[in-house]
Amino acid sequence: MSLLITNAVLDDTSVSIMIDREKITAVYQSDSIQPVFKADTVLDAAGKVAVPTFKNGHTHAAMTLLRGYADDMKLQPWLEEKIWPAEARLTGDHIYWGTRLAALEMIKTGTTFCNDMYFHFPQAWKAYRDSGIKAAVGPAIIDHMNEERTDQILTDLKEKFSEYSGADEKLIFSPAPHAVYTVSEKTLRRIADFCREKGLIVHIHLSETEKEVNDCIAAQGMRPAEYLDSIGFLGPNVIAAHGVWLNDREIELLAEHQVTVVHNPVSNMKLSSGSCFRFGDLNANKVPMMLGTDGCSSNNNLDMCEEMKAAALLQKHHFLDTELMSADEIFSIATGGKTRIYPNISSNIKPGDYADLLLIDPNHYKMVPNFNTISNLVYSCGEEAFDTVICSGEILMQNREVDDEDTVIEEARRCARELVSE
Amino acid sequence: MSLLITNAVLDDTSVSIMIDREKITAVYQSDSIQPVFKADTVLDAAGKVAVPTFKNGHTHAAMTLLRGYADDMKLQPWLEEKIWPAEARLTGDHIYWGTRLAALEMIKTGTTFCNDMYFHFPQAWKAYRDSGIKAAVGPAIIDHMNEERTDQILTDLKEKFSEYSGADEKLIFSPAPHAVYTVSEKTLRRIADFCREKGLIVHIHLSETEKEVNDCIAAQGMRPAEYLDSIGFLGPNVIAAHGVWLNDREIELLAEHQVTVVHNPVSNMKLSSGSCFRFGDLNANKVPMMLGTDGCSSNNNLDMCEEMKAAALLQKHHFLDTELMSADEIFSIATGGKTRIYPNISSNIKPGDYADLLLIDPNHYKMVPNFNTISNLVYSCGEEAFDTVICSGEILMQNREVDDEDTVIEEARRCARELVSE
Repeated sequence: MSLLITNAVLDDTSVSIMIDREKITAVYQSDSIQPVFKADTVLDAAGKVAVPTFKNGHTHAAMTLLRGYADDMKLQPWLEEKIWPAEARLTGDHIYWGTRLAALEMIKTGTTFCNDMYFHFPQAWKAYRDSGIKAAVGPAIIDHMNEERTDQILTDLKEKFSEYSGADEKLIFSPAPHAVYTVSEKTLRRIADFCREKGLIVHIHLSETEKEVNDCIAAQGMRPAEYLDSIGFLGPNVIAAHGVWLNDREIELLAEHQVTVVHNPVSNMKLSSGSCFRFGDLNANKVPMMLGTDGCSSNNNLDMCEEMKAAALLQKHHFLDTELMSADEIFSIATGGKTRIYPNISSNIKPGDYADLLLIDPNHYKMVPNFNTISNLVYSCGEEAFDTVICSGEILMQNREVDDEDTVIEEARRCARELVSE
Repeated sequence: MSLLITNAVLDDTSVSIMIDREKITAVYQSDSIQPVFKADTVLDAAGKVAVPTFKNGHTHAAMTLLRGYADDMKLQPWLEEKIWPAEARLTGDHIYWGTRLAALEMIKTGTTFCNDMYFHFPQAWKAYRDSGIKAAVGPAIIDHMNEERTDQILTDLKEKFSEYSGADEKLIFSPAPHAVYTVSEKTLRRIADFCREKGLIVHIHLSETEKEVNDCIAAQGMRPAEYLDSIGFLGPNVIAAHGVWLNDREIELLAEHQVTVVHNPVSNMKLSSGSCFRFGDLNANKVPMMLGTDGCSSNNNLDMCEEMKAAALLQKHHFLDTELMSADEIFSIATGGKTRIYPNISSNIKPGDYADLLLIDPNHYKMVPNFNTISNLVYSCGEEAFDTVICSGEILMQNREVDDEDTVIEEARRCARELVSE
């Protein structure tokens, strides 16, 4: 399967982009001598601007079913009275359609990859396969600090690893121990060993709240990142969500181990997580980074374009520095350009890269005038200007149309009703 | 001219809405005994959700021409090297098309009113008239603290008042002295007297930066709101933009005089204005409020839906209180429900109100599931879900189409090129 995109604009130059299966094989100027390619499909971009797609570094995709179910509440009542009771009713069917709804929204908003942590992952896996986007997904692991559960968890993990790892080109099997306060040391150590042995990426929450830090100091005599380091958990295969309460020593440890830290500004603000993602210091220390939306119940969408603006504004507000986190910097982070953890995504448009492309309408009013495409993407325009989304060479959206949209919405509505009425 | 909207959803009930000229005359349930109305136009809303439109409390509309021209810079170099030199080239033609581009964006994003402060206001006035939205607009006044200019300014103001005030039902003639640091005491006093005498609304910047406060204390021995009070400027006809550095006494003064304060969270964050709009205290003191986008060069769009989310997130982050500024509260502010300053806008959908309506597609994926329409509007969805915009009974957008869109974009592009290349 090959795809030739003609008349796209890349860095202010009119180009054609040749894609063979999942990768870009050639990029050439429209007014140069034309190579002869026989492509299965030719897509005339008609002057649309090509940029890399967004990569969502941290979400709980199927929580999209709980969008708008409960907002503006204190953290504990919100969790205990609303979110957890609804989640207790989740079935595999709900996860499937909730993840399909999430994937639909991600495609519409220009995202072709997400790192997901939620229940019933095999149904999420199936949903990603059916939607066509790429994802890192695997069992979310919680043992409630009970080390008697470690053996069973590892047995399950190995089983799932055999079944899923490498089973789909677009999907990465990635275990997700929830956090230092929900998973015991023994389980964390065993997961870390297993993942290192098998070359797996591992996804965890880290330093989201002050309580997490204080509880960790009380229990372990160390801050969360120090504790994870002390038990051999940290490494370049670790992706850690939030990182808003990190101190200097923790930033050094994350840099040393090249852990990818995921910033989730909207969720952090909505949940009043306090402090702030120390972008300047993390960046100066060359800590790999991604941007994420977190789940829909604390956001309440999966729109990475909106998340970029929130990130840049939050840095400027919190640290009182208008120059901090420029449009170019956050765009690079949001498209996956500041991490190498996932081997099957691309944040560039050049030969050899995965063909993860977004085509934007330069005539959308929020793109006018067009002084700077990246500034417009970060600070002005949104999904309405996004015309076409290509994920590993596959066209997932064209002219804003995505397959199965009506079915996904209808089924997601049914699932949401079941979740809150049962 | 009358308009009957059938099959709209209002507060979860299917209704018809009858509009006679600019106002709503009847709202009745779809399944009730049907009154017989002879409407000139019938619009089948087909299940779309009706909500009040947004009202933008503070903007510099034609600055939309400078969208993305310069970002992520320190305030002074940004103003001195980029914004001011470009503004110095502004002609009436630029203002007209810049304001048309702004109005196009406002219509598309569900806004039917804005309070505008910028140069060459007669051209902006004409642009609003041609676009169909409502606005408060008038001369932006700066005398660079030179009281010798006061008489000429007042002569001009009176002339413009005679020509414009009451000249258009949708447009409010509203003088805009820029700020306490750009307009002398004498001019401010004379403007205040004139506006009070003529019943005019007056628009000013207030307490945007710490420097403004410190300079005012140095010059006047008082903080900006105290100073404006001391010279008899404050009153219920005053609308003051920003108010991020107010102390308790200033909040009391604004409450006492029922000054409307406009919150511009995105601009405040992008420019690192510091401190924060004290929503909780202003609200407890019953200070009238609006939400605004500020100009496009510090935002970079005019999207009030996005601004609502930024406002709610900023309060929760800055004051560490998840319950502060609920979705319902910011929606009420953003639709004009927390001020009475403008007589020709409406924040409700009931008989007697101005017909300022937005019809939203409930089947848009960001509206799914539909647990709470207002939560979805504030935290999840955006313009893409907005189908129809009605301003004072006139349909300005239907099926997302707005008159003259291509012409406006083409002319705005031309103007933007002229601004930066001359």
